[in-house]
Amino acid sequence: MTHSRTVELEGHIIDSGMLQQVMGTVMDLGGNFNVEQFDVGVHKEEETYCRMDVFADDEGTLKEIVHELHQLGANLTDPVDAKLVAAPADQVVPTGFYSTTNHPTQVRHGGAWLDVENIEMDCAIVIEETESGTRAYTKVLNAIDEGDLVVTDEAGIRVDPPERPRDSSGPFGFMQGGVSSERPSESLIRQVADALTKTKEDGGKVLVVAGPALIHAGAGDDLARLVREGYIDMISAGNGFATHDIERGLYGTSLGMDMETMEHPRKGHKHHIYTISEVIRAGGIAEAVDDGLITSGVMYECIQNDVPYVLAGSIRDDGPLPDTITDAVEAQNAIREQAHEADMVLMLSTLLHSVAVGNCLSSTTKVVCVDINPATVTQLLDRGSSQAIGMVTDIGTFVPSLADKVLDDA
Amino acid sequence: MTHSRTVELEGHIIDSGMLQQVMGTVMDLGGNFNVEQFDVGVHKEEETYCRMDVFADDEGTLKEIVHELHQLGANLTDPVDAKLVAAPADQVVPTGFYSTTNHPTQVRHGGAWLDVENIEMDCAIVIEETESGTRAYTKVLNAIDEGDLVVTDEAGIRVDPPERPRDSSGPFGFMQGGVSSERPSESLIRQVADALTKTKEDGGKVLVVAGPALIHAGAGDDLARLVREGYIDMISAGNGFATHDIERGLYGTSLGMDMETMEHPRKGHKHHIYTISEVIRAGGIAEAVDDGLITSGVMYECIQNDVPYVLAGSIRDDGPLPDTITDAVEAQNAIREQAHEADMVLMLSTLLHSVAVGNCLSSTTKVVCVDINPATVTQLLDRGSSQAIGMVTDIGTFVPSLADKVLDDA
Amino acid sequence: MTHSRTVELEGHIIDSGMLQQVMGTVMDLGGNFNVEQFDVGVHKEEETYCRMDVFADDEGTLKEIVHELHQLGANLTDPVDAKLVAAPADQVVPTGFYSTTNHPTQVRHGGAWLDVENIEMDCAIVIEETESGTRAYTKVLNAIDEGDLVVTDEAGIRVDPPERPRDSSGPFGFMQGGVSSERPSESLIRQVADALTKTKEDGGKVLVVAGPALIHAGAGDDLARLVREGYIDMISAGNGFATHDIERGLYGTSLGMDMETMEHPRKGHKHHIYTISEVIRAGGIAEAVDDGLITSGVMYECIQNDVPYVLAGSIRDDGPLPDTITDAVEAQNAIREQAHEADMVLMLSTLLHSVAVGNCLSSTTKVVCVDINPATVTQLLDRGSSQAIGMVTDIGTFVPSLADKVLDDA
Amino acid sequence: MTHSRTVELEGHIIDSGMLQQVMGTVMDLGGNFNVEQFDVGVHKEEETYCRMDVFADDEGTLKEIVHELHQLGANLTDPVDAKLVAAPADQVVPTGFYSTTNHPTQVRHGGAWLDVENIEMDCAIVIEETESGTRAYTKVLNAIDEGDLVVTDEAGIRVDPPERPRDSSGPFGFMQGGVSSERPSESLIRQVADALTKTKEDGGKVLVVAGPALIHAGAGDDLARLVREGYIDMISAGNGFATHDIERGLYGTSLGMDMETMEHPRKGHKHHIYTISEVIRAGGIAEAVDDGLITSGVMYECIQNDVPYVLAGSIRDDGPLPDTITDAVEAQNAIREQAHEADMVLMLSTLLHSVAVGNCLSSTTKVVCVDINPATVTQLLDRGSSQAIGMVTDIGTFVPSLADKVLDDA
Repeated sequence: MTHSRTVELEGHIIDSGMLQQVMGTVMDLGGNFNVEQFDVGVHKEEETYCRMDVFADDEGTLKEIVHELHQLGANLTDPVDAKLVAAPADQVVPTGFYSTTNHPTQVRHGGAWLDVENIEMDCAIVIEETESGTRAYTKVLNAIDEGDLVVTDEAGIRVDPPERPRDSSGPFGFMQGGVSSERPSESLIRQVADALTKTKEDGGKVLVVAGPALIHAGAGDDLARLVREGYIDMISAGNGFATHDIERGLYGTSLGMDMETMEHPRKGHKHHIYTISEVIRAGGIAEAVDDGLITSGVMYECIQNDVPYVLAGSIRDDGPLPDTITDAVEAQNAIREQAHEADMVLMLSTLLHSVAVGNCLSSTTKVVCVDINPATVTQLLDRGSSQAIGMVTDIGTFVPSLADKVLDDA
Repeated sequence: MTHSRTVELEGHIIDSGMLQQVMGTVMDLGGNFNVEQFDVGVHKEEETYCRMDVFADDEGTLKEIVHELHQLGANLTDPVDAKLVAAPADQVVPTGFYSTTNHPTQVRHGGAWLDVENIEMDCAIVIEETESGTRAYTKVLNAIDEGDLVVTDEAGIRVDPPERPRDSSGPFGFMQGGVSSERPSESLIRQVADALTKTKEDGGKVLVVAGPALIHAGAGDDLARLVREGYIDMISAGNGFATHDIERGLYGTSLGMDMETMEHPRKGHKHHIYTISEVIRAGGIAEAVDDGLITSGVMYECIQNDVPYVLAGSIRDDGPLPDTITDAVEAQNAIREQAHEADMVLMLSTLLHSVAVGNCLSSTTKVVCVDINPATVTQLLDRGSSQAIGMVTDIGTFVPSLADKVLDDA
Repeated sequence: MTHSRTVELEGHIIDSGMLQQVMGTVMDLGGNFNVEQFDVGVHKEEETYCRMDVFADDEGTLKEIVHELHQLGANLTDPVDAKLVAAPADQVVPTGFYSTTNHPTQVRHGGAWLDVENIEMDCAIVIEETESGTRAYTKVLNAIDEGDLVVTDEAGIRVDPPERPRDSSGPFGFMQGGVSSERPSESLIRQVADALTKTKEDGGKVLVVAGPALIHAGAGDDLARLVREGYIDMISAGNGFATHDIERGLYGTSLGMDMETMEHPRKGHKHHIYTISEVIRAGGIAEAVDDGLITSGVMYECIQNDVPYVLAGSIRDDGPLPDTITDAVEAQNAIREQAHEADMVLMLSTLLHSVAVGNCLSSTTKVVCVDINPATVTQLLDRGSSQAIGMVTDIGTFVPSLADKVLDDA
Repeated sequence: MTHSRTVELEGHIIDSGMLQQVMGTVMDLGGNFNVEQFDVGVHKEEETYCRMDVFADDEGTLKEIVHELHQLGANLTDPVDAKLVAAPADQVVPTGFYSTTNHPTQVRHGGAWLDVENIEMDCAIVIEETESGTRAYTKVLNAIDEGDLVVTDEAGIRVDPPERPRDSSGPFGFMQGGVSSERPSESLIRQVADALTKTKEDGGKVLVVAGPALIHAGAGDDLARLVREGYIDMISAGNGFATHDIERGLYGTSLGMDMETMEHPRKGHKHHIYTISEVIRAGGIAEAVDDGLITSGVMYECIQNDVPYVLAGSIRDDGPLPDTITDAVEAQNAIREQAHEADMVLMLSTLLHSVAVGNCLSSTTKVVCVDINPATVTQLLDRGSSQAIGMVTDIGTFVPSLADKVLDDA
């Protein structure tokens, strides 16, 4: 084991599990470590500092280990600048480019540490000299322009994963283990309501990501109420969500089921495709609202209350509605803007759109994920937000209960 | 195809699907049929009559076909008495004994048709001469006594599966196809509430089958309210349900999670096993209520309001509580009595106990099955009640919402 | 009930359930019926003919009933031509346009019945006079051109849903009720293998729809074998599937997990994003194969064996690869072409792409749907193919077993 | 914070996560800590030692904290004997009795540390003076006899949770996070096969816990092969498993489905109940084998090869078979004996029986859990074995593949 590097960690690295992960990773990858300095935080408020040498038999393994440790927040001690290489062509990153985590990140440039703007996962970092100074920011691969100065390798980069909060408590916490449906549902909805109210009081922005199941389950009116009362700042959804919401207003049905009496739930109904053709004929949702065609529902309230929405297209769409962004890259860019603005995100009964939004979120954004399928909740929470609540519950009872709690408190 | 028998069907046999099943069954099993008489119900109120000869290449196949048809409600036309054979020993049925469906059934004896009492699936039918006349009733295999006169073969037996209701409507209906979570939840809960209220107004009895998840999900108080207010006549549960309910009263936790603050959900908590040991020490639940140990919860309300309960044991039980019936056969017998008395059954978040109760129900009993796992709901509804509602929803929001609707209406 | 229309049904309408559905639909929608003529098929080979008057209290209800019956295969007796209206603008269908089912359909035009080409669900039917005669074919809404002659209302249209096969048997059958994982898996895979071999022997085309889970589960090599040996004619997948497949070849990992040793399954691995950047640098998958970058896997075999593929984009994609069609409408068109050519479709572990393909299929195409999640299988089979096998099983054992069976037989 | 106690931890406490859990627990419960001594293991082979004072505002909180820490392996430094109190009555433990974890545990008695025999969760520890010396062993609550000397409180007890293995590798490892179906299935089955073979080579005992789904899925023959070839030492199942296995031999069906052709899967079949009645008539499974009634299958091989089985009763049983232990407490005792003897446990498609067996296992027993439902696998692995493999796969392909791999290697 002649190859070695020195890394250091600091913070509440023991109880946050960071040190455990670092040591485990070295061992999993066949390396070894030597703790050089270890100043344990003797009280719970004190931070711990650890500096260790990491060894491996060959340079390749060592590099892989350092790569992993880096992503866990163990940074190289060497104070060097990040290496920059110009992109050889549009959409082509330099070989060995640094691919980001979703944690707050800094890059060393000209001897100083720059915060990376709009951090999100799996991006390149571009350094740009501007009139107001040097900026470091993320770019997805398809946005790279020829000549962009892209950070490569891993030296000169610091990652700072969120730590376990000192005070226990609050529903947003480190997710420990799996997601269970066996939790007191009404108490948890109360906590989501409080967090939503608090976010708005603090001037934050709330993004709702919603799937068509929300409408089928009868929760459209309650989401519309929250939009009308100003609790929702942005909506991220798809053609299906909007169509079902509008169909409900036009025909009183969703996928052919009468929402009040639940009678006649049959496949043959054509309300869905008629709804789309009517909105196409009007020219779009806003025009259909202006024409008096659409007079209620979530989309109606968005138009009436200037709540911006992104309808991202999908290959399973009928139509689609004219408002739908059919190009996936364009749609991602629109979603990315929403995600970067959001302080709290409610992911309601949609895996596809929730993953798309989640891909653009920093690990510090508050996320509430609600689905009746535990696998969906687990998959979404697994993406590593440190401020996440997962609930396995019925969207058709969750949204009404949430709206009641939020609006009764107001 | 020289072997044949004649069967007849009558009723709303087309729109109920009975005729489709009968014809399909004959074909699936390699037989053929010849419709001898067919009087179609030309209006929706009119019944249809069909008499057909069924053919097969060999007697074995014919017998199998007739067996299947019989269970679908196509009865042999031959007016013969059922064949009776005495059971050769305790728990031993005669070879070829007739095994029941869960549909209303009649047996021909002495030239007259007797209704089979306490019909349930997979039982033997015993004919007994009593002072008040001849009775036909079901017995499970392990209840057979030597000498019991047991119906064998399938002649002289009429099965009458429930038909599709003439009026559309009502949440209780023929389950068509799968169970979806995408239905307007609040509307459906309203319909369950109305059915519950109606059952009580009509003097019917309501049986709740409940699993521990109901307590974990925070719905214990609401079920307790329904018991206290007289809406629940019987409870069928297990050692786990009762223990979690009592633990909640004793420690404010369920499986170690504080039900109000949701803090400290950890595995190490020993409240569960302490709760059991305390109740054992008191001598049982009623004694623990008398001693002032248990002062709230579902079991408390059962004791205070004389609502009988069956706690059936299971091999995964801790303890168990002294009230638990540990012998499976004894427990089944206790459950059987509950099932036979019930006019409406709410199956809440337990597969094991719901299957046990469902096994003892006639196909004419009203059943509401609620679980967050669609597979559980499907499996339970699949057992063939014709009066069933299935809901894939969160028990932790369902029960509070149901209790509010029922009690607000009162 | 003064409003009435006459409809007729013929075929094996009893055992196929068609008559049951028709009668049930009339009743559900509040109508009534009068059977005018009923010629029952007395043997199983004989068809049944039924003509009935349908009544409703008002014209609106009657229209709704007739609309539903029509989709079930009960056609109006009136021999009139279909009504044609010119589309007022691009993408805008005339009001009241006829929206298709996925069943074989005929349109009456100039007194003759035309088969509708490329039937698929939720499309408009366009009538076009061509040099070779009059054609009727489907168009999706977004493909409508101004002036297209579009069929409106429901007169002059005949729908012919597939019937229950006379012989029992074969794995492709009418799906009755739910999908269970409790079936003899190896026997069922054997039947899929036989159907695949048979389709190829008959000169048919096989389309595989595959999700990334297939690669994660370790089944990539086996799918590649089937492609190499000529059993797969087309592949429909997404950016994720292709990337994971190529990553496996480049790094021996999929999402960072070593496929042989299963060691080091950690999130930090960046192989996924590196793979994409390498293929972008090469210019595409074919170029990367030419360059010797990609030397194995499903995509490699597609390039080497001229098996065409469609990679449809999605908002959750990283990259994407240059081969990905990012526009949803363009991607749907590419998928539509595949679907129309296919005689047998294997849907393997992807809901999104399977729904997209399924939307374009006629009800007469053979479909095999495999997923470990029963809800996915149910949802896909529910779309109404009459030639469908659903299997709830592990794709990681299914594909190897299928490849062994198919190739061992060869 | 005037109340304090001193605890110590040693071992690979950082990378095993023990230290993280201990610190987190103190903070969650509102306490504080002061690290008195911390000797970090500087190499990966070296152990770490930590002694810390734990503080709380009141004695109750402190006690709760110490209770939690104790279960995590942080033991009090005070070298006192465990406190013993005589049980006041049969089945009644003394107040404050120590309830066990499933980790290896020692009790201090007479100044010496005794290993607790047959450790399993949620038991009492009884100390008994015997001729061969003092023994400490577990008793479940219902086995307590009046006068038993039961350990109370937590002083004088040491818990030693299994540590993360030093070498990476092997499929049995610390379960990190959730269970995914997206893993290379064939590789994982290979590793299970190797572990099974290794266990037998080492003279270990293999216990199979099996549910009826195994038979429905067509895997009965393959499990029977493994029994016949001597790879299975014990079987733990229920009445349903045995009945379906025997039904398959008697009628070639399981729940009425023909296992070869998969034809005629209908509900009406009575093979299940006939099977039970035939075995009752014979007097039991062994007698039915002797009589030549049962000539193949898993139960047949058990009888022929003297492989002991436990059939535990349940309230959903039909019959049951005479071999079934209907009393839950008796059945638990029989299961307990199996569990204590087993070196490796395969839990195959049964939640109920797997939980029952799992409740009796030490955290050091090797466990393989296979189910198609991820929630079942998660729930079983969550019970805390440190030697566990979870697979979300199809039992109908898993068992044949496992049998092939094990027997081909032999």
